[in-house]
Amino acid sequence: MDIAALRAANPEHWMRAAAIRALTLDAVAAANSGHSGMPMGMADVATVLYEKHLKFDAKAPDWPDRDRFILSAGHGSMLLYSLLHLTGYEDMTLEQVKNFRQWGAITAGHPEYGHAKGIETTTGPLGQGIANAVGFALAEEIQRARYGRKVVDHHTYVIAGDGCLMEGISQEAITLAGRQRLGKLIVFWDNNNITIDGTVELSDRTNQPQRFKAAGWHVIEIDGHDPIAIDAAITKAKTTSKPSMIACKTHIALGHAAQDTSKGHGALTDAAQLAEAKAGYGWTWGPFEVPTEIKTQWEAIGARGATERAAWEDRFAGLSGRKQDDFTRALALEAPKKLSATIKALKKQISEGAPKVATRKSSEMVLEVINPIMPETVGGSADLTGSNNTKTGDLGTHDIDNRKGRYIYYGIREHGMAAAMNGMVLHGGARAYGGTFFTFTDYARPSMRLASLMKIPTVFVMTHDSIGVGEDGPTHQPVEHLAICRATPNSYTFRPCDTVETAEAWEIALTSKDTPSVLALTRQGLPTLRTEHKLKNLSAQGAYVLAEATEKRQAIIMATGSEVSVAMEARALLEAEGIGTRVVSMPCWELFEEQDEAYRRKVLPAGPVRVAVEAGARMGWDRWLTGERGKATKADFVGMDGFGASAPAEVLYEKFGITAKAVAESVKALL
Amino acid sequence: MDIAALRAANPEHWMRAAAIRALTLDAVAAANSGHSGMPMGMADVATVLYEKHLKFDAKAPDWPDRDRFILSAGHGSMLLYSLLHLTGYEDMTLEQVKNFRQWGAITAGHPEYGHAKGIETTTGPLGQGIANAVGFALAEEIQRARYGRKVVDHHTYVIAGDGCLMEGISQEAITLAGRQRLGKLIVFWDNNNITIDGTVELSDRTNQPQRFKAAGWHVIEIDGHDPIAIDAAITKAKTTSKPSMIACKTHIALGHAAQDTSKGHGALTDAAQLAEAKAGYGWTWGPFEVPTEIKTQWEAIGARGATERAAWEDRFAGLSGRKQDDFTRALALEAPKKLSATIKALKKQISEGAPKVATRKSSEMVLEVINPIMPETVGGSADLTGSNNTKTGDLGTHDIDNRKGRYIYYGIREHGMAAAMNGMVLHGGARAYGGTFFTFTDYARPSMRLASLMKIPTVFVMTHDSIGVGEDGPTHQPVEHLAICRATPNSYTFRPCDTVETAEAWEIALTSKDTPSVLALTRQGLPTLRTEHKLKNLSAQGAYVLAEATEKRQAIIMATGSEVSVAMEARALLEAEGIGTRVVSMPCWELFEEQDEAYRRKVLPAGPVRVAVEAGARMGWDRWLTGERGKATKADFVGMDGFGASAPAEVLYEKFGITAKAVAESVKALL
Repeated sequence: MDIAALRAANPEHWMRAAAIRALTLDAVAAANSGHSGMPMGMADVATVLYEKHLKFDAKAPDWPDRDRFILSAGHGSMLLYSLLHLTGYEDMTLEQVKNFRQWGAITAGHPEYGHAKGIETTTGPLGQGIANAVGFALAEEIQRARYGRKVVDHHTYVIAGDGCLMEGISQEAITLAGRQRLGKLIVFWDNNNITIDGTVELSDRTNQPQRFKAAGWHVIEIDGHDPIAIDAAITKAKTTSKPSMIACKTHIALGHAAQDTSKGHGALTDAAQLAEAKAGYGWTWGPFEVPTEIKTQWEAIGARGATERAAWEDRFAGLSGRKQDDFTRALALEAPKKLSATIKALKKQISEGAPKVATRKSSEMVLEVINPIMPETVGGSADLTGSNNTKTGDLGTHDIDNRKGRYIYYGIREHGMAAAMNGMVLHGGARAYGGTFFTFTDYARPSMRLASLMKIPTVFVMTHDSIGVGEDGPTHQPVEHLAICRATPNSYTFRPCDTVETAEAWEIALTSKDTPSVLALTRQGLPTLRTEHKLKNLSAQGAYVLAEATEKRQAIIMATGSEVSVAMEARALLEAEGIGTRVVSMPCWELFEEQDEAYRRKVLPAGPVRVAVEAGARMGWDRWLTGERGKATKADFVGMDGFGASAPAEVLYEKFGITAKAVAESVKALL
Repeated sequence: MDIAALRAANPEHWMRAAAIRALTLDAVAAANSGHSGMPMGMADVATVLYEKHLKFDAKAPDWPDRDRFILSAGHGSMLLYSLLHLTGYEDMTLEQVKNFRQWGAITAGHPEYGHAKGIETTTGPLGQGIANAVGFALAEEIQRARYGRKVVDHHTYVIAGDGCLMEGISQEAITLAGRQRLGKLIVFWDNNNITIDGTVELSDRTNQPQRFKAAGWHVIEIDGHDPIAIDAAITKAKTTSKPSMIACKTHIALGHAAQDTSKGHGALTDAAQLAEAKAGYGWTWGPFEVPTEIKTQWEAIGARGATERAAWEDRFAGLSGRKQDDFTRALALEAPKKLSATIKALKKQISEGAPKVATRKSSEMVLEVINPIMPETVGGSADLTGSNNTKTGDLGTHDIDNRKGRYIYYGIREHGMAAAMNGMVLHGGARAYGGTFFTFTDYARPSMRLASLMKIPTVFVMTHDSIGVGEDGPTHQPVEHLAICRATPNSYTFRPCDTVETAEAWEIALTSKDTPSVLALTRQGLPTLRTEHKLKNLSAQGAYVLAEATEKRQAIIMATGSEVSVAMEARALLEAEGIGTRVVSMPCWELFEEQDEAYRRKVLPAGPVRVAVEAGARMGWDRWLTGERGKATKADFVGMDGFGASAPAEVLYEKFGITAKAVAESVKALL
């Protein structure tokens, strides 16, 4: 590239962009790690975006109607940190930039949601940001329809790299956005033709513009270093009704000796080359030094939105009090006051009626009473609506001509759905839940992990949660998935045993502010076990005594979900033989772990034989069987030790030995 | 559809296809579950494929040079079972078809690899089959280059539905196949416009032909019920050098009252409608009855390839003895005789030299000696070649003009890579291994699970296996992933502590015939701990005593991977205080679990305090801490209880308290 010509063509723009490049080089050099090339390549696009288009106010970073900027290519984190620092976000001090990638700094290797204002989502695992963005844009559409264009009217901008576009999740995101015609979603493709292993051609020759067009996108191709072209492209993209992809031809590590090479992707720390690059830029200042003139220009950009924001505040104040309250409440993730009473009423009704239903149906019964009082819920399913029981009568189908619709047909896109749900929650004003089969947790895993890491309360409705699936066979029968969810930090894994526990699980999931929930629900019908109505949410303690021993307590049977009724039957068998048996229902291990020692000891006292029954892998159960005052010689597990099989559910339970009789035998063998 | 017109146009073809439709209706009705619509819609395509193109011999289903047929839309399993039964595969008896979806039958709900001949891979989780197929086609290319067109020259055919094409993995598969110009891969898209939730438009409006063209595919669009058009399309597809997609416009549940509806996707069991559909077909026979004339036609199709196969046997016999042996050995998954001696020699050399290297580098050192003696290995990485250390000097890069190349640049496609690796192993003659970061196990999970379920020895090289990753932060730091892998049935999770253990792990992985392996390897350097050369593969026992207590044994420290050296340092601290401490290295839990009680007791005797140290989640460790003769009051775990952070690795180990000092303190607190 002819850096001198670029400088000369747009000198003021050039120096503003150079500030990003210089800060990036300095921060990476100081950390001796990081990714220099992407911020250096995309500095021009980002500068024009922030300067001329992005609606934001650096002094009010939480302004609900701000445009969202998502750095899907999260390894280029110094691009974002530079922008936030330069435009005057208060928390993004120069000190933080200097501590790039160090312990305790908000400037992590990849942008971490919650670390700093202006980081809208955690990125780094490629493809996640662009898929989150679909959720952001959906949430905007839904809220615009509900509250009006005067208070909700913003864009979602994304920078995605070749890595994002090669990941399968990007296809799910792109086609979903195209289907829903999310016109306010604008994606910049950093078309620099370089990946870690070499040039893109080494592994990919996809015609990306054609691919996006096939998905119903508007596509514009530009020189990503020409500020005039960038400006024109964004202006154009904002006018189209389709989502837009702006293909930006760029040079990775622009102006550095490593430009246009794989080396340029990584940490450029050579002092001489760094100095040479800066000299080429005309950047004559020391490390981390930004001259006042340029910093002032950037701060003006950061303040550009202040007037618009003030006008927005006025418009917002013009909404009815109820609308304002609703908007603010949902944004703060506060549950409506009515939620608790609604759940209690349902629990009472269920305890009295004691229906025998699958917990996926229980979940639908709960949603039928919740959705009408929580306008912030947005439901959906990855093409299993009737099986996941996720759609209730009042939601309405979200579509191009029905933006108020709160139910999304995600199609066969578990991963894209999970990421979009995260995006909606991150956008604010939405509580997203969505369903698939529990075994397809596997497909959604990368986004589910990010919900836990980001501390956001996305709800994953996972039905068909064991061999109870039956004839569809082992590909559709989760075995290790409870262990997977439970092993993930900051996640609630609920496996309710009946409709009452399902209602309790939903109440916790929908009042959680910083923990996602997985609801593992059955395909097969289960009896109501909680037939005595309790106002208290017993599931909130994670585990509790469902049935006490009537004879002298010799055994404790622990179980979750569909196996709690198996445990109850086993108890009946044992008590009939005079063996006092307690049944402990454990709908949520994580919550039980949070209880104090005294409560845990009350539920699981030392002494009795302990048998756990769960139609899944044993992994993790020893925590409760042999740990927690238990004894290896007095403990056993009844469950799966391999994959399932294809046959009717009741046959499978019998063949795999997950029966009341087997549990009772196991207890007796240990007495 | 005008069924009468279709019948009249091609009466003989019609009745052959009707046999598939009738068997499907009968089997689903008998099982009272399953998916009728897809086999009924794609019967014409399948009939023409088997009749006129597929190179196979039903009496020799393992013929290595057969064409492969992969039913990616696995829910339509009755299509495949019908074809196998009709063409005369010996194991696919009518009895098996009648027992569709029942316990013990080979006719599972979804096709299960290993259940019956002619099932080339397990499908059901959507998108997997088409992604496996890329691996089949790659394996064919590599082996054709090695052995010549006379003995390796076959096609890979796939039937994929809308679900397969919506899943992100299909994009990874399609773009990889396009990049590698896999001309012998031919995909039929069952374009029936129906998914479970409704018409495809409900969730997707992708222009699929345009999308495939953007990925470098040849696309043909036809009426999927016109046998002449189907034949012509396949003939054309076989001549192009690009992979081909044949878009087949079809009617789901053709000729049934539920035709062209979502209901038609599922189990069509209504007796009257079933009879009406059969009458429309002109199918006048009873349930499961196929008239001799039609069965004979189908059996002739099944025998069509016999002559060609005999000719192939002759050609194969014409290869040099060494080539024949190599070919047969690799197909049987037999390791070369030299492998054991080669590993032993490397172990000796390492034990003597005691280098300090990261285990990802150790893995490369092992591969450098293995790849030259195992021509069946095919390596690769998802764009992290230099970081995963997966490429060795001799492999050569696989490319359009270098089909002998055994190293594949998979691009940023972890999921597609895992599925393609499975495909290569399933094809036969290849042992595939491929790398990414351990945390991106999440992206590859669905295919990794299928490797376990299918019992195939794919090798997943997962580097950067803990917070040892350092500055890249929590998105790149696995925490729960060891638990995830260990919870999965039939999978070896290796976490070697040094180069010697890494060599042992590779030896096990490359001699395994029915279990996939995960190698969790470090980014950071580790000392050689196995400095005393042992001929025996100690890792094959899963866990073993690495260092015995010199004083009276009061404590056992268990550890894996990078924490084994931490354990050794803790042992030194404790022994210096007179506290006899044994260190047990546990490179593979699953293998340790397979050992007999006597050996396990020898390694983990009752009595001493037990502390485990691993830079991951505790989930599962209680099996060894409090179970297996342990005691809750004398056990502790030093590891992670949340996500990681962004900082240099040594800072993270210190801050998260995973240090020799912390381990020693923990032991002392329990004494």
